[in-house]
Amino acid sequence: MHSPATPPVLDAEAVSAYLAAEFPQIGIGRNFSVEAVGPMSARLRLHFRADQLRPGGTISGPTIFALADVALYVAILAQVGHVKLAVTTNLNINFLRKPGPSDLIGDARLLKLGKRLAVGEVTMFSVGAPEIVAHATGTYSIPPRNEDEVL
Amino acid sequence: MHSPATPPVLDAEAVSAYLAAEFPQIGIGRNFSVEAVGPMSARLRLHFRADQLRPGGTISGPTIFALADVALYVAILAQVGHVKLAVTTNLNINFLRKPGPSDLIGDARLLKLGKRLAVGEVTMFSVGAPEIVAHATGTYSIPPRNEDEVL
Amino acid sequence: MHSPATPPVLDAEAVSAYLAAEFPQIGIGRNFSVEAVGPMSARLRLHFRADQLRPGGTISGPTIFALADVALYVAILAQVGHVKLAVTTNLNINFLRKPGPSDLIGDARLLKLGKRLAVGEVTMFSVGAPEIVAHATGTYSIPPRNEDEVL
Amino acid sequence: MHSPATPPVLDAEAVSAYLAAEFPQIGIGRNFSVEAVGPMSARLRLHFRADQLRPGGTISGPTIFALADVALYVAILAQVGHVKLAVTTNLNINFLRKPGPSDLIGDARLLKLGKRLAVGEVTMFSVGAPEIVAHATGTYSIPPRNEDEVL
Repeated sequence: MHSPATPPVLDAEAVSAYLAAEFPQIGIGRNFSVEAVGPMSARLRLHFRADQLRPGGTISGPTIFALADVALYVAILAQVGHVKLAVTTNLNINFLRKPGPSDLIGDARLLKLGKRLAVGEVTMFSVGAPEIVAHATGTYSIPPRNEDEVL
Repeated sequence: MHSPATPPVLDAEAVSAYLAAEFPQIGIGRNFSVEAVGPMSARLRLHFRADQLRPGGTISGPTIFALADVALYVAILAQVGHVKLAVTTNLNINFLRKPGPSDLIGDARLLKLGKRLAVGEVTMFSVGAPEIVAHATGTYSIPPRNEDEVL
Repeated sequence: MHSPATPPVLDAEAVSAYLAAEFPQIGIGRNFSVEAVGPMSARLRLHFRADQLRPGGTISGPTIFALADVALYVAILAQVGHVKLAVTTNLNINFLRKPGPSDLIGDARLLKLGKRLAVGEVTMFSVGAPEIVAHATGTYSIPPRNEDEVL
Repeated sequence: MHSPATPPVLDAEAVSAYLAAEFPQIGIGRNFSVEAVGPMSARLRLHFRADQLRPGGTISGPTIFALADVALYVAILAQVGHVKLAVTTNLNINFLRKPGPSDLIGDARLLKLGKRLAVGEVTMFSVGAPEIVAHATGTYSIPPRNEDEVL
């Protein structure tokens, strides 16, 4: 349905405005910023904050999970537009190295964008360091237009 | 090595005191409380807080992730003792239903506790509701005593 | 939709006959047998065959994967009936111990059975041994009646 | 420890010869062939065989699982050499599209190669078709030299 060559219908600014209005809890512009969106892809930045630290100066697992989840959500939202609301149904995350106290980048790539399910992967690394800190794959259910059909 | 019949070496109170002292970020007693520990198992409670809500009044994905991760960590810590520090290497989570605005319970069960790896599952549900809200499996690396051997 | 208390619409014999007729490749009665079905659950047996062995006398990963997948599929099929065809969309498997040269049991339990997605877990162990050999969780897409709606 | 720039210690021919001698069950040269190995990577080909087909002419899930597992194993083996034996501890696979009746390619890339754990991902597609058929991530435990230290 959505070919990888199809350009996204929302750009980084439009996605950011939508998320700030509809999901203020995410903290777009404060916790995260949308660095770029592209065909079937998005790049998110997690702003380093001292209160996310675990002992040893590393970023917490839930915070890294949130980066993966938001990055995939942004990639879907930019590609499909904000008519439909995607819901995370599965997220599998591998923690590979402890990130240091700096911003994290999450590069999301959609592997499939169907009418009912979207699947993507996210590679995460610290700004300025080549090693992968964490890698996630996630599945999102895209609700039908007909509200009678439940998940 | 660790038979399911082996009782844990730390009780709920001892685990809670350890976490409060060593991992104040987790917020034991505030965000979470250890309801029980048993052989290869632990039960955690996530205290409902309005600032964890997503639109529609549900608890956020990262918060549910944190419940799963803390529940498995507590099950390992109680069984093994606080000499060794376990590190999350993989967490796979299925989100099944949107929880309402109430406390969540996470029932963790260790499937394997080896010298180097521990694997467990967590079933999560809202207090007073039988339906499973989310289910996770996680893998933890248990560091060797010899600090020279790296992950 | 499907409460855990709802009895399955097909029994073990009916599911076995359906699979033998429609999916002869699975090898019901030869590779696998359906030991039992219940509300939101199924028990499958993998018959030990020497050609599935890996060096050291253990059962191969793909064979254990097949047991998990068939067990979950049978649990869905028994509960829903053979009108709809479920498709595996995700399977996450943890290999915990190397099984010896004997039959394996896979105990499947559905965690959710919605109109569009089913999610379940499978615990696998060797006949006569209490230790868990492998554990899997899987997600299945249940196609709509309307063939125009694609996955 | 192993930088991505480090060339593998075994080439495709050497890995194939090792697997054919030590793991004849895999069927290197018959079921699979090693197309290439590179730094932290490997490309495997699954030879299409009619007996792997599911109804509708698609390749079975266990066969796709086997491709992912063998591809990751070859990437580790080529990089590390055949001194140590890696064991699959986790494999998470997303099935995205039904592959047709043709050979499948599995492109494996190691995300981390530590002393104790290796983690990688595999992208799978049919020969001559750009769409991704399946995607997997896997974790492998690399046994210690000291046989006394158990998993």
